[in-house]
Amino acid sequence: MNLVQSLTKRCAAESLGTGLLVAAVVGSGIMGERLAGGNIAIALLANTIATGAALVALIFTFGPISGAHFNPAVTLADALEKGLQWSEVPFYIGAQVLGGIVGTVCANAMFELPLFSLSRHGRHGVAQVFSEFVATFGLLAVIWGCSRIRAKVVPIAVGAYITAAYWFTASTSFANPAVTVARCVTDTFAGIRPIDVPWFIAAQIAGALAATLLFRWLLPGLSAEAKDIILPHGETVRELVSGSGR
Amino acid sequence: MNLVQSLTKRCAAESLGTGLLVAAVVGSGIMGERLAGGNIAIALLANTIATGAALVALIFTFGPISGAHFNPAVTLADALEKGLQWSEVPFYIGAQVLGGIVGTVCANAMFELPLFSLSRHGRHGVAQVFSEFVATFGLLAVIWGCSRIRAKVVPIAVGAYITAAYWFTASTSFANPAVTVARCVTDTFAGIRPIDVPWFIAAQIAGALAATLLFRWLLPGLSAEAKDIILPHGETVRELVSGSGR
Amino acid sequence: MNLVQSLTKRCAAESLGTGLLVAAVVGSGIMGERLAGGNIAIALLANTIATGAALVALIFTFGPISGAHFNPAVTLADALEKGLQWSEVPFYIGAQVLGGIVGTVCANAMFELPLFSLSRHGRHGVAQVFSEFVATFGLLAVIWGCSRIRAKVVPIAVGAYITAAYWFTASTSFANPAVTVARCVTDTFAGIRPIDVPWFIAAQIAGALAATLLFRWLLPGLSAEAKDIILPHGETVRELVSGSGR
Amino acid sequence: MNLVQSLTKRCAAESLGTGLLVAAVVGSGIMGERLAGGNIAIALLANTIATGAALVALIFTFGPISGAHFNPAVTLADALEKGLQWSEVPFYIGAQVLGGIVGTVCANAMFELPLFSLSRHGRHGVAQVFSEFVATFGLLAVIWGCSRIRAKVVPIAVGAYITAAYWFTASTSFANPAVTVARCVTDTFAGIRPIDVPWFIAAQIAGALAATLLFRWLLPGLSAEAKDIILPHGETVRELVSGSGR
Repeated sequence: MNLVQSLTKRCAAESLGTGLLVAAVVGSGIMGERLAGGNIAIALLANTIATGAALVALIFTFGPISGAHFNPAVTLADALEKGLQWSEVPFYIGAQVLGGIVGTVCANAMFELPLFSLSRHGRHGVAQVFSEFVATFGLLAVIWGCSRIRAKVVPIAVGAYITAAYWFTASTSFANPAVTVARCVTDTFAGIRPIDVPWFIAAQIAGALAATLLFRWLLPGLSAEAKDIILPHGETVRELVSGSGR
Repeated sequence: MNLVQSLTKRCAAESLGTGLLVAAVVGSGIMGERLAGGNIAIALLANTIATGAALVALIFTFGPISGAHFNPAVTLADALEKGLQWSEVPFYIGAQVLGGIVGTVCANAMFELPLFSLSRHGRHGVAQVFSEFVATFGLLAVIWGCSRIRAKVVPIAVGAYITAAYWFTASTSFANPAVTVARCVTDTFAGIRPIDVPWFIAAQIAGALAATLLFRWLLPGLSAEAKDIILPHGETVRELVSGSGR
Repeated sequence: MNLVQSLTKRCAAESLGTGLLVAAVVGSGIMGERLAGGNIAIALLANTIATGAALVALIFTFGPISGAHFNPAVTLADALEKGLQWSEVPFYIGAQVLGGIVGTVCANAMFELPLFSLSRHGRHGVAQVFSEFVATFGLLAVIWGCSRIRAKVVPIAVGAYITAAYWFTASTSFANPAVTVARCVTDTFAGIRPIDVPWFIAAQIAGALAATLLFRWLLPGLSAEAKDIILPHGETVRELVSGSGR
Repeated sequence: MNLVQSLTKRCAAESLGTGLLVAAVVGSGIMGERLAGGNIAIALLANTIATGAALVALIFTFGPISGAHFNPAVTLADALEKGLQWSEVPFYIGAQVLGGIVGTVCANAMFELPLFSLSRHGRHGVAQVFSEFVATFGLLAVIWGCSRIRAKVVPIAVGAYITAAYWFTASTSFANPAVTVARCVTDTFAGIRPIDVPWFIAAQIAGALAATLLFRWLLPGLSAEAKDIILPHGETVRELVSGSGR
């Protein structure tokens, strides 16, 4: 049995996973705002809990298939560290962006809104952009700290990190270029104006790069050996099938 | 020692587990609405946290006995993938529906309401039905992604998924025909009008079927071998008893 | 190295753990009510999250020492199933009750309230008592379903169960005679009138007994072997020390 | 491959981890207060969830590098129990305090506040100081109960404990001298007046010492052997790399 999936299947998994993630982010934002009676903290609490919980479920689900990146910043960082071949990167990112947009469309449909509508939710300024740098720096720190040496905790650690980061960054931690693009086609709670997207993405890539270089120094011994002992998506087939794969 | 339980005991476990799950859904809905002072977001937050946490506890508890389906859509999908014999399906579904209704009755009794009362809570329209399709599609994706190759995380993954789905679907993710039927005999927060039930169930079965077929393609290598290495309910006896369980 | 602790140390652990648990229940009730501005749902949400999280932390902490019962109903059920010797039961229960009362006193002190004050919070009637029966039945079901064959998940499963049960029972799930007694000496959110205590305790014992007998039938194969392969507190020393302890 | 990191790298990990933790505490306090519309319970709920989730993510991330103390009280207790050499203690504590202050500055920057501003949030009196004693006593009890014999659960147990302790202590459980110092340079929700800091720190050290001595008695067998079988930061390299790491 060969669990190193074909690129097609891995891209399908990335697309589906990113789609469900974005549906969770956008849909719970709509539901939260509708029900919260004007209290934005309660709306954001609902949005946070739904997003963090969705990440836990989706990374457990798609991790063994594609690595469960759902995020071009993670895919780029993974390629930089030789976890993914550079030739596969465009396919991964394309699948993530496409899946994310479909996810927004699905969320809009579930809540009887226009399928596409450009967001007018302004998110700009130095503090917002710096927030995205910090958010993505922290996300990649968590991923590099966990994924190489105890990959099984990644779903919990990433879900917990984003739960926290929704509240401790001024931008509510998009931390993901594909999700950022997908969130500009819904004019709801979780939306972002298209004009603000490039700055967010630049800050996200910079944050991911900074964390990747820092952890190359912090955990150097592993990067050399990781190629041999760990699959691109962080878990060996044998341990998964033998039942020890928590 | 033989942990493959008799059908009687497995059905008892399905009935009891579904009953406690429905009691959690209905009871926390009543409590949440009573205490929230009109803020529906807070009521739904309480309902969400209680439901997600109940799923975690109940799947850990009954998983080793019956597989902890608690859900006819899961039972049908499992039979389709040869995890359960077709001859056992009616017993599983009967136990789930019966247990679910008893769960509603218990919740009504705990909150001093009439034991049975048909719900007048309308949940209809294309968006609601599409929401149930998405909700159950996602649930089965999580189950197929996790249960065959790392069954031990199913309780956490399913609990997290439903926590998210309560907020990101417009229908608050019933995603379960037995729970849907049980929720039509309480005229409270979590109720659903009997007339809306058939559409919900049809969408749930369709969503479950779609995810099952998709994962048959995404993870094909496993379905062939799964029969031999994994019990119907996803964990081998030996690993449970040897202490490596989870 | 011998991890089967002396009775003195196990009772100290039961006392300390029950004390911290009760401090969490009572203290978070006071804090929640003070800050929630009259919205009882928000106060109960805080109370719920604090209690569920405290259970997770405390069962992980004291489980390997004493079994982390913190609860006379659990201690009695464990003795009934030969997990604990009957001669040790009075010491366990005494330690739990004493620790619980000290926990209440500490919570009152931290919030600058009289150290002791009898509660005037009435909790009575058939629905409340039935709620306690259901709550404790469910708690013991979770414990028996998890503790014998995959003890490592007990802290998560019990914490999750009580999180749910706070909302789905009308009594907010005391489900614990020692905690019930300790909660009658604080006239705050989590309190209970002394006169209502006996009915609560009777229902708790009945619920625990019912679940224990049911699981003796549901999982019979295990009770015979459990004596040999599992320590009274559910985890073998060897697996803990060998590093496989979850 | 040698995972026992150099002191430089371990101090970098302590600094970075404490910085991200403090950014989470301070940042989520600001966001919570801004959005909660005057309901302090909702602000504290957001602050609690962000802090607990951040601890889970950060301890998973930095635990294998430095032990993830992020806390001088933990570092001192660890040295007392021979987990860390006394000569390394000043470097650990210096890194934690420095990182913590940088974390506050980052949080202030993300929310467009003055980078430094002394807090005017008074937290004093016997009840507050006793609360810090209890909070840190409980934290160290959790750490000693879990870290030596099942280190893999420490991130979950500590995150859960602090989630509870935010609500059950009157001081909202600082329980950490480095975090306490860092929180006095932000005049926001999570701040503390500089003049109140020494009492908090004294109570924290006393609580940590009391729990350490108590667990030296409760779990004596382990302290002798722990030196050989467990690394300073609680997990053996071999189990991490072999894939059994939780």
